[in-house]
Amino acid sequence: MFTHTSRLQFEAKPEKPDPVYARKLQELIGGAWGEMTVTMQYLFQGWNCRMPGKYKDLIMDVATEEIGHVEMLSVMVARLLEGAPAETTAAMVGADPVLAAVVGGMDPQQAIVSGGGATLSDSNGVPWNGRYIVASGNLMADFRTNVAAEAQGRLQTARLYNMTDDPGVRDMLRFNLARDTVHQNMWLAAIEELQEDGLEGPVTPSALFDEEHVEHAGTIWHLSDGTHGAEGRWASGPAPDGTHEFSYLQDPQPLGDVASAPKPDPLLYATSPANLGLIEKAIKKLT
Amino acid sequence: MFTHTSRLQFEAKPEKPDPVYARKLQELIGGAWGEMTVTMQYLFQGWNCRMPGKYKDLIMDVATEEIGHVEMLSVMVARLLEGAPAETTAAMVGADPVLAAVVGGMDPQQAIVSGGGATLSDSNGVPWNGRYIVASGNLMADFRTNVAAEAQGRLQTARLYNMTDDPGVRDMLRFNLARDTVHQNMWLAAIEELQEDGLEGPVTPSALFDEEHVEHAGTIWHLSDGTHGAEGRWASGPAPDGTHEFSYLQDPQPLGDVASAPKPDPLLYATSPANLGLIEKAIKKLT
Amino acid sequence: MFTHTSRLQFEAKPEKPDPVYARKLQELIGGAWGEMTVTMQYLFQGWNCRMPGKYKDLIMDVATEEIGHVEMLSVMVARLLEGAPAETTAAMVGADPVLAAVVGGMDPQQAIVSGGGATLSDSNGVPWNGRYIVASGNLMADFRTNVAAEAQGRLQTARLYNMTDDPGVRDMLRFNLARDTVHQNMWLAAIEELQEDGLEGPVTPSALFDEEHVEHAGTIWHLSDGTHGAEGRWASGPAPDGTHEFSYLQDPQPLGDVASAPKPDPLLYATSPANLGLIEKAIKKLT
Amino acid sequence: MFTHTSRLQFEAKPEKPDPVYARKLQELIGGAWGEMTVTMQYLFQGWNCRMPGKYKDLIMDVATEEIGHVEMLSVMVARLLEGAPAETTAAMVGADPVLAAVVGGMDPQQAIVSGGGATLSDSNGVPWNGRYIVASGNLMADFRTNVAAEAQGRLQTARLYNMTDDPGVRDMLRFNLARDTVHQNMWLAAIEELQEDGLEGPVTPSALFDEEHVEHAGTIWHLSDGTHGAEGRWASGPAPDGTHEFSYLQDPQPLGDVASAPKPDPLLYATSPANLGLIEKAIKKLT
Amino acid sequence: MFTHTSRLQFEAKPEKPDPVYARKLQELIGGAWGEMTVTMQYLFQGWNCRMPGKYKDLIMDVATEEIGHVEMLSVMVARLLEGAPAETTAAMVGADPVLAAVVGGMDPQQAIVSGGGATLSDSNGVPWNGRYIVASGNLMADFRTNVAAEAQGRLQTARLYNMTDDPGVRDMLRFNLARDTVHQNMWLAAIEELQEDGLEGPVTPSALFDEEHVEHAGTIWHLSDGTHGAEGRWASGPAPDGTHEFSYLQDPQPLGDVASAPKPDPLLYATSPANLGLIEKAIKKLT
Amino acid sequence: MFTHTSRLQFEAKPEKPDPVYARKLQELIGGAWGEMTVTMQYLFQGWNCRMPGKYKDLIMDVATEEIGHVEMLSVMVARLLEGAPAETTAAMVGADPVLAAVVGGMDPQQAIVSGGGATLSDSNGVPWNGRYIVASGNLMADFRTNVAAEAQGRLQTARLYNMTDDPGVRDMLRFNLARDTVHQNMWLAAIEELQEDGLEGPVTPSALFDEEHVEHAGTIWHLSDGTHGAEGRWASGPAPDGTHEFSYLQDPQPLGDVASAPKPDPLLYATSPANLGLIEKAIKKLT
Repeated sequence: MFTHTSRLQFEAKPEKPDPVYARKLQELIGGAWGEMTVTMQYLFQGWNCRMPGKYKDLIMDVATEEIGHVEMLSVMVARLLEGAPAETTAAMVGADPVLAAVVGGMDPQQAIVSGGGATLSDSNGVPWNGRYIVASGNLMADFRTNVAAEAQGRLQTARLYNMTDDPGVRDMLRFNLARDTVHQNMWLAAIEELQEDGLEGPVTPSALFDEEHVEHAGTIWHLSDGTHGAEGRWASGPAPDGTHEFSYLQDPQPLGDVASAPKPDPLLYATSPANLGLIEKAIKKLT
Repeated sequence: MFTHTSRLQFEAKPEKPDPVYARKLQELIGGAWGEMTVTMQYLFQGWNCRMPGKYKDLIMDVATEEIGHVEMLSVMVARLLEGAPAETTAAMVGADPVLAAVVGGMDPQQAIVSGGGATLSDSNGVPWNGRYIVASGNLMADFRTNVAAEAQGRLQTARLYNMTDDPGVRDMLRFNLARDTVHQNMWLAAIEELQEDGLEGPVTPSALFDEEHVEHAGTIWHLSDGTHGAEGRWASGPAPDGTHEFSYLQDPQPLGDVASAPKPDPLLYATSPANLGLIEKAIKKLT
Repeated sequence: MFTHTSRLQFEAKPEKPDPVYARKLQELIGGAWGEMTVTMQYLFQGWNCRMPGKYKDLIMDVATEEIGHVEMLSVMVARLLEGAPAETTAAMVGADPVLAAVVGGMDPQQAIVSGGGATLSDSNGVPWNGRYIVASGNLMADFRTNVAAEAQGRLQTARLYNMTDDPGVRDMLRFNLARDTVHQNMWLAAIEELQEDGLEGPVTPSALFDEEHVEHAGTIWHLSDGTHGAEGRWASGPAPDGTHEFSYLQDPQPLGDVASAPKPDPLLYATSPANLGLIEKAIKKLT
Repeated sequence: MFTHTSRLQFEAKPEKPDPVYARKLQELIGGAWGEMTVTMQYLFQGWNCRMPGKYKDLIMDVATEEIGHVEMLSVMVARLLEGAPAETTAAMVGADPVLAAVVGGMDPQQAIVSGGGATLSDSNGVPWNGRYIVASGNLMADFRTNVAAEAQGRLQTARLYNMTDDPGVRDMLRFNLARDTVHQNMWLAAIEELQEDGLEGPVTPSALFDEEHVEHAGTIWHLSDGTHGAEGRWASGPAPDGTHEFSYLQDPQPLGDVASAPKPDPLLYATSPANLGLIEKAIKKLT
Repeated sequence: MFTHTSRLQFEAKPEKPDPVYARKLQELIGGAWGEMTVTMQYLFQGWNCRMPGKYKDLIMDVATEEIGHVEMLSVMVARLLEGAPAETTAAMVGADPVLAAVVGGMDPQQAIVSGGGATLSDSNGVPWNGRYIVASGNLMADFRTNVAAEAQGRLQTARLYNMTDDPGVRDMLRFNLARDTVHQNMWLAAIEELQEDGLEGPVTPSALFDEEHVEHAGTIWHLSDGTHGAEGRWASGPAPDGTHEFSYLQDPQPLGDVASAPKPDPLLYATSPANLGLIEKAIKKLT
Repeated sequence: MFTHTSRLQFEAKPEKPDPVYARKLQELIGGAWGEMTVTMQYLFQGWNCRMPGKYKDLIMDVATEEIGHVEMLSVMVARLLEGAPAETTAAMVGADPVLAAVVGGMDPQQAIVSGGGATLSDSNGVPWNGRYIVASGNLMADFRTNVAAEAQGRLQTARLYNMTDDPGVRDMLRFNLARDTVHQNMWLAAIEELQEDGLEGPVTPSALFDEEHVEHAGTIWHLSDGTHGAEGRWASGPAPDGTHEFSYLQDPQPLGDVASAPKPDPLLYATSPANLGLIEKAIKKLT
């Protein structure tokens, strides 16, 4: 169960409205790598975590924080839209090119649908959806995704930081950048700890190593003609998991047979030599 | 530019058809963490990579391999569907409960739409889409996502491995498991190499550390009442990036003000005390 | 079965083209609360209505009208796009800032895909989809949604009315506003009549009141720290349905136990203390 | 900012696992009218509300409660999946028709993707998305939608209540039914209060009544041939808003002209008589 | 403007309910190639058609018919669901394997959401969306798509015809098959007539033939190693448009340069050799 | 299995960056009728083709070519974005209207998400998805769709050709136009050959002609009031398939009965006269 305070985790006050930037900020709310994604991803990972204790409690701590990030950004967007030229007509646009450009760069739904507020969409107006998250039950797989999400999130925040010089917006983004830093470090630490605790190995899942075709578990296949792929440490020597050995196949050949399709089912009407003559018969029957 | 051989990278021949399993395998084709995702993710990362050389060439090697994995799985699905009870009627179902169950567990679109072939959808029939991939231009962010994708991919393959005892299917999945192992190791090695080459640090992006609010770049906020979150290595001591220090805030307080919304625009008709009396006037005007 | 006349329900002739506004009008065609939604919602409600008679006939009357609204708006959009600067090049844009802004504010798909016509998308180009509608079989639930749809629809139309001063566009929107007024009133009247006819009560569905936990059927839980939530008529006294009593819980406590997750299935590879030592064994097996 | 307790708002313990029902319950989590929808809808309405005070505080109270409902349902789903036949093979299915049917009726992603946990999807596996919510800034429009959402929500909960006889599941659903009852009453009360406070009238928005075509603001158009549409109270007499008068048009005629499309732009290649002869010229040029 | 009669274009009465088949029929309502697609595609093509006269009138004739097909199928689905085992519990399922299988094969949303009626989704429950349609303004492009849509539609109808032996369902599908036959013939005839009228040539659009690289306008590139691709009439000789000549390139070589990416923008943080040393500096600044 | 060369099939070098055009080009990458669609459509058609030989080999030749088209366009987009004003602030926008307009017309995700590269979305930022493709197993149905896809593709390319005067972009589009010409001709030739080979007839599928209601297989229903629909060759005379006869029904009447819905299931709570009195009872029970 959750409780809420009306105070924001961190201040979200722009110095001036900026409706074009309000559209861009939507990427951090409803984008695939925005705050809504980490909120719902961590909540479902927490509810689905099979180990009571430090991992589950950490996940729930951070999940709860992230709901507050969606809140901060939504409030920021509403404030950036204050006084936006929402009712500008063609005549006004024709008279003022800067106004025209502002209107062109805005998200029309922030005015028409939300009445000057944020939507649950990205910067192109595409709605956030539940396939953006993953909660697999396997904490190593999940934490790998979490590091990725915080990295992409901080990258996008950094890009957006460079697209504004509003001191209020920048102040909030400085907080967001810092949180994305600690969360990256935190999930990296948790990944190390999962291994130290003997719960997971570096390769996920820690299973079926004796069933998989081991001769294919270390080879890089040279299938594109760039010649430098063999120069990295992935081309030879021990793999990071400490048990596999890398090698680089310079001239790999297909191991399987020709990709033939099975015999068709006549009642599904796939085109097939078995149909030869059927057309004539079909037509004869008809006429 | 690409070229193609009709031979599969690895054999994809089930011993027997199994239409219920054919539906499940769709998860590895068109699921958020399936082969289509890594194919398109690596292709766009490669095309968008700003460094000619070993990283770009590696990405293109693996991207090209992955198209062939979509191929193997699609051929396998078509073969698993051979002779599937696609035209079973209610009368036949009523007479044979096992047949009935098989029909219930099949993906109807594999018959009705694809005529006994794979679709570009997941195991619930939801189509694959382009928001599943990311190609950010930042190789650290991308490789983190790639590790995650290969980990979730191997996890799902392992689960599917346990859902069949068909020797032909298992043989192919043994190959897939092995490829997911080497690809996880490979991206982990590439992450190490990016750091050794001085191109990226552990936290992404390697920038804006002096702009972010440093006092918030190491704290975990205790916002859920589980008491064990402070027991991990993320609660104190040096962070994995070697420069930040972790701490755990036991009783964190909001730093921002109340989340008020800005003054409404009268022409957007938000409900507001400024409207008091407007209704009466509106109605009077009308009558 | 339907028939069609080429004449529009109401005129849809702009005085002048306005391609930026043509993009905005898409919200009324293919937006979640646009005319396509009410069209399909009413059609499915009508086809799914279990009572022959006045309700079903009314629904089909209005559903049939709404198809004509999609028509009016689509024709209006095509006319607003007449002579739109669809082939403007970078050189032309660089020479004329107002033209540039117009190009920036247009929907590129209206030119590239539809050749100067409307699409079945909203003002951000997101396609309309069938999850926007509901036809539940329960007329009270459906009519509640219909009032909401007409209210959001009229609100959006009113906002768009303020974004143009073209007399032809405004003339059509004056008609649309009026239709949204009568449809709101009409569904409100139908809701009253459903109750007078003894078919539905104010709370939907009119069932299971004796099964639900009655002690939780009147309490508002104070879970956010705003102090004014208890000042409305929902905080005490009789509820609108005439049978429940409201109360406001100032300090609500969770009634359930800790949200633990069940024991993991080993073949699904959830991280769990039961796995302790498995990693070592897995690796040993491999080496 | 939010905080969280690990205790659930209400208990969520099934007596026995039931994986087929676990799929159905997804409708209440990630369906268009599920708990995720009301959670996000109320959060965005609260953040976007322009009036500090009782309405905003109430919205935030209920929004915060709803996050806890997503939690309860997700935990319930995980528990219903305990011991689900996730690794059943074709051989096992062939030997046990009931097991086969259970496998057929399960959501495969709950096993393959989530490892035995809930997903953020509906009962057909379609992901929840942000277009399901609305936060318009106009409280009357929003509260109308909220009543509809709680009505559809209670209706779906009631249907699901009849699909199980597990005492633990039913106990939780009895709580959910009760909450949907009070929330319907509460939004109905808030709608009355908005009008008593003079903030909004029954028709939304309370504006532009003097601009709309008043002669079309009371007529029902008889466009479907059912003869009973004129028998309801919407066919004549005063409308619920107290200012309009209903009438029923028995033989309505289109008011607009023929729906002609504007002149095509030659560079967009619409088919048009203006192209006559162009084809020949194009071909001549080529040959 | 449209009008409606309550009578169906053709009868839609199953002899017996069949809820598993009701799910499959959804493909013809809300699938990518179902009746909803042709309805909306033809409506938008008609509204967007730039030539008054026979083509536009034909399109509107058929568009109007298709709305009635969505109606017939929706009514059929509701009737197939009559008495469906919507409230079956686990205990009932355990006792009756055929019932269990039926429950497994049903669409749960047809019960939970629609109360025993059709939804606007396909047979996997994925909602219909507006990107399934195209109305390009170019009648040749549109009619090509229409032939394809009617062909896929008839194919799917034929497959579904073989999945039932209910005389009432089959009677309706016999009508649908016939309509798909005439509509295929009709669009094929309209394609011929467009050419006879000199409005469009066989290749779309009839333009830019003198601008395109003519040396690449007749060659088939042999990029897959199957050896039979050169055996068809597309490998040599005159092309169907009567002006181009086919040839088959046995060993095609790339014509472009290496696919390098442009110089990165430092403020977008792409990984690049230009960053060498930046990490160290960034960290030094921080510590 | 696939292999790749780093050289592009054709050069993709713009003379100058043009970020507004980079957004528009997305339509050819990730639009419903873009290169991604034909790539995946042909791949799945090839893998699903039941006839080894010339048709399958041709499909795989072209499919393999199309992957290279996605590559060319993605590289072009990255190059068009070089030096794009991705970090422009409000102050810079206010000072330079042309810059402002450029920023307004750009796709924000190309900067924020992809760091200056292409995305897998269309020109409105909507992601490509797997429902855009079809691979039915029936080659006639598939080839009809392929002609349509190449026609819409060439049409969109032609429109985009007119929207730029950059010599480098135009050079690549001249190649693309030529490829779309040969591919249209090629699928048209393959359609003829399918018939000459006796594999498929003009109407798809070549089956069930003796089961369909033959009296409805040639009639056009006059359901819209345009009077010219009867003037085309589809209104009388032999149909293109050579076996059916067209006729035009001037005053078509519905053949079916009234579209009544079946009896409701009481546990699904549809509104129904059978419920009369239930409300009172429900309330009485409660009080």
